[in-house]
Amino acid sequence: MSAEIISVGTELLLGNILNSNAQFLAQQLAELGIPHYYQTVVGDNVDRLKQAIATACERSQILIFTGGLGPTPDDLTTETIASFFNAPLIEKPEIIADIQQKFAERGRQMTDNNRKQALIPRGATILENPVGTAPGMIWQPQPNLTILTFPGVPIEMKAMWQQTAVPYLKGQGWGQAMIVSRLLKFWGISESSLAEKVADFFDLENPTVAPYANFGEVKLRISAKAASEEAARQIIEPVEQQLLQIGGLDCYGSDDESLASVVGDLLKITQTTLSVAESCTGGGLGQMLTCVPGSSSYFLGGIISYDNAVKEQWLGVDPQVLAEQGAVSDRVAQQMAAGVRSRLNTTWGLSITGIAGPEGGTDTKPVGLVYIGLATEQDLTSFVYRFGARGRDWVRQVSACTALDLLRRRLLTEPLAPDDRT
Amino acid sequence: MSAEIISVGTELLLGNILNSNAQFLAQQLAELGIPHYYQTVVGDNVDRLKQAIATACERSQILIFTGGLGPTPDDLTTETIASFFNAPLIEKPEIIADIQQKFAERGRQMTDNNRKQALIPRGATILENPVGTAPGMIWQPQPNLTILTFPGVPIEMKAMWQQTAVPYLKGQGWGQAMIVSRLLKFWGISESSLAEKVADFFDLENPTVAPYANFGEVKLRISAKAASEEAARQIIEPVEQQLLQIGGLDCYGSDDESLASVVGDLLKITQTTLSVAESCTGGGLGQMLTCVPGSSSYFLGGIISYDNAVKEQWLGVDPQVLAEQGAVSDRVAQQMAAGVRSRLNTTWGLSITGIAGPEGGTDTKPVGLVYIGLATEQDLTSFVYRFGARGRDWVRQVSACTALDLLRRRLLTEPLAPDDRT
Repeated sequence: MSAEIISVGTELLLGNILNSNAQFLAQQLAELGIPHYYQTVVGDNVDRLKQAIATACERSQILIFTGGLGPTPDDLTTETIASFFNAPLIEKPEIIADIQQKFAERGRQMTDNNRKQALIPRGATILENPVGTAPGMIWQPQPNLTILTFPGVPIEMKAMWQQTAVPYLKGQGWGQAMIVSRLLKFWGISESSLAEKVADFFDLENPTVAPYANFGEVKLRISAKAASEEAARQIIEPVEQQLLQIGGLDCYGSDDESLASVVGDLLKITQTTLSVAESCTGGGLGQMLTCVPGSSSYFLGGIISYDNAVKEQWLGVDPQVLAEQGAVSDRVAQQMAAGVRSRLNTTWGLSITGIAGPEGGTDTKPVGLVYIGLATEQDLTSFVYRFGARGRDWVRQVSACTALDLLRRRLLTEPLAPDDRT
Repeated sequence: MSAEIISVGTELLLGNILNSNAQFLAQQLAELGIPHYYQTVVGDNVDRLKQAIATACERSQILIFTGGLGPTPDDLTTETIASFFNAPLIEKPEIIADIQQKFAERGRQMTDNNRKQALIPRGATILENPVGTAPGMIWQPQPNLTILTFPGVPIEMKAMWQQTAVPYLKGQGWGQAMIVSRLLKFWGISESSLAEKVADFFDLENPTVAPYANFGEVKLRISAKAASEEAARQIIEPVEQQLLQIGGLDCYGSDDESLASVVGDLLKITQTTLSVAESCTGGGLGQMLTCVPGSSSYFLGGIISYDNAVKEQWLGVDPQVLAEQGAVSDRVAQQMAAGVRSRLNTTWGLSITGIAGPEGGTDTKPVGLVYIGLATEQDLTSFVYRFGARGRDWVRQVSACTALDLLRRRLLTEPLAPDDRT
């Protein structure tokens, strides 16, 4: 018993969109423990879709389609599947009623082309769409073959998957062995350095350990296969402990944690507060911090001092220092951090000033040069980085993450004594 | 003549990573005018990879592999392809020399497992990797079948594609017809409303017109097939003009333009400046604005007033208004916009205050309620939106984009007279 994901849509073949649906479904199948060995992408074309179905039928027993369920003429997934298995299409009045109601709720009339969405092959069951108008189906056109169809719109596909498909698949008793993964996240160490430190673990078979890297972040994924989630977690546990030991402070968190959420937790534990002063990141550090629900309990705000006049007037940066050392310098980073901290009256002040590029670099101050300042009432430090001319987005993203990571390490190693807090 | 993309890697089947390589290659093939009808994803498994090769050989003439070229035992793309076509593997001394040199540059010794990367099937040509250690190959194992292999690491794959594969493919004279696309971008209109307005265009065959929607943004892609880029652009042009006519103000730009870049262009044209005051977006609006290189010429900075004390103290929001109407109210939005504008001394002041959720909503002020304020020296307006409880990220992202869109419309319809400028 194995599943195959078939993504239908010419926009995928043109590269107009990323196939994020396939990733979501792949994760979900792994969690359910349903093996999945192939994914296929095919365009909005009857003959080629039929060929993809023929190939998939020979090697997989659960075919999961996304895309091609809409009301327009190039949406032809349902009719092509029906035609492949020589089944007639039946109009379902309950789908028409559902679509009419959804249109009515928006004060609109159902259009004629939506009628097409009410057709499903004889014998198929409707897979309800709680979000949009296009329903899917669950169908067993022949013994030992189950077809599930979903729209291509990710939000609709995900809602239908969770609400209807997961209970159905679990109800069938599919998925003997579960794959459970644990993701350890690192900042401040390169992928190759980490890989060298943990090289022995890459030979493990259950759990497996594999490294990934993206935008300065390095991850180790520990994946275990077992009959139950609990058994898989027990396989993961000892390996995770060893990796945490090796990773030390470089490992900042796991799974859904982010640098911002980890810093937030530490600020809450230490009952301290934070404000930020941003130049080259232009608000990106604040944006990251406030991604975390509840961040208002420790993050008070900040000043985006993109222009030097704002640095002087609203952060108290010394005009002479700006003139002599430039906006991208350790003194300015320190004064920005101190300025925002005292003005917003927080425990910590964190600042970033740098050259994001692509223009603006010089020999002595190249693109990618970034200073990060960290202020408390008692002390003032700054850090310099050369992130390289790897693109404006890269420099800005890595700068904000590095600032969070600096504060994280400080919070872990040198927490303020309670009477030091402002 | 058509190509097929075969992505090899168990991490794709586990959903650990997004298949961004397939999107990149799809775009590249479209630009080169090489038809491409199927994509396959298969794990690091010899038998299944062989089956995928067998299927692909029957329907495609150019097979493009990514992944499985590394030095570890689960990297088996090259040896499996060789075995499928019964070709012996040959060790290439020039690859060994290249890997040794790359290791030496980093002050390291080549390890034994890297030797594996020097093996390619007899008759294949090395596809050099300027970035990493894993080279690829170009091989014609049988008449009318060409195989290209690339590593899975996107940065290496892309560099090799551009530097070696593109010249090769062009040199073969493949790709008669080019596909050129033009993307029109809309804000402030729903996908279904826009689709209704332009429904007739969806029946066109060359160019084709197709709608996409994501995170509140709607796009229309016009794609033309022609012998040359110029001919394709001529096919696109009249349709684009008609769509722009219909779209009116809702169409904010095209292709690589963003709301932030369009607003930036308008600020430059009108020689006006901008500052922002952000509550629920926490810096996201400033972050978007400063994504645009050169934004420092019109964006001076902002105040992230996450905490009410910051709203009072640094934006001059009236404490009584805060107490009586709450931080999420039109009066507060207005006072935030006016406050940041006057303090940072800019032409425009733009503010956002809202409830991003998931917590914090009430019956009268539900999650997704957002106020946007826009201030000039002469006037002060605010706008209210109910974006719905569709997730914290959604509310924040859509709020920032909507704020930019409001300013865009104002700049287009009611530009300040030169003597109104501060």
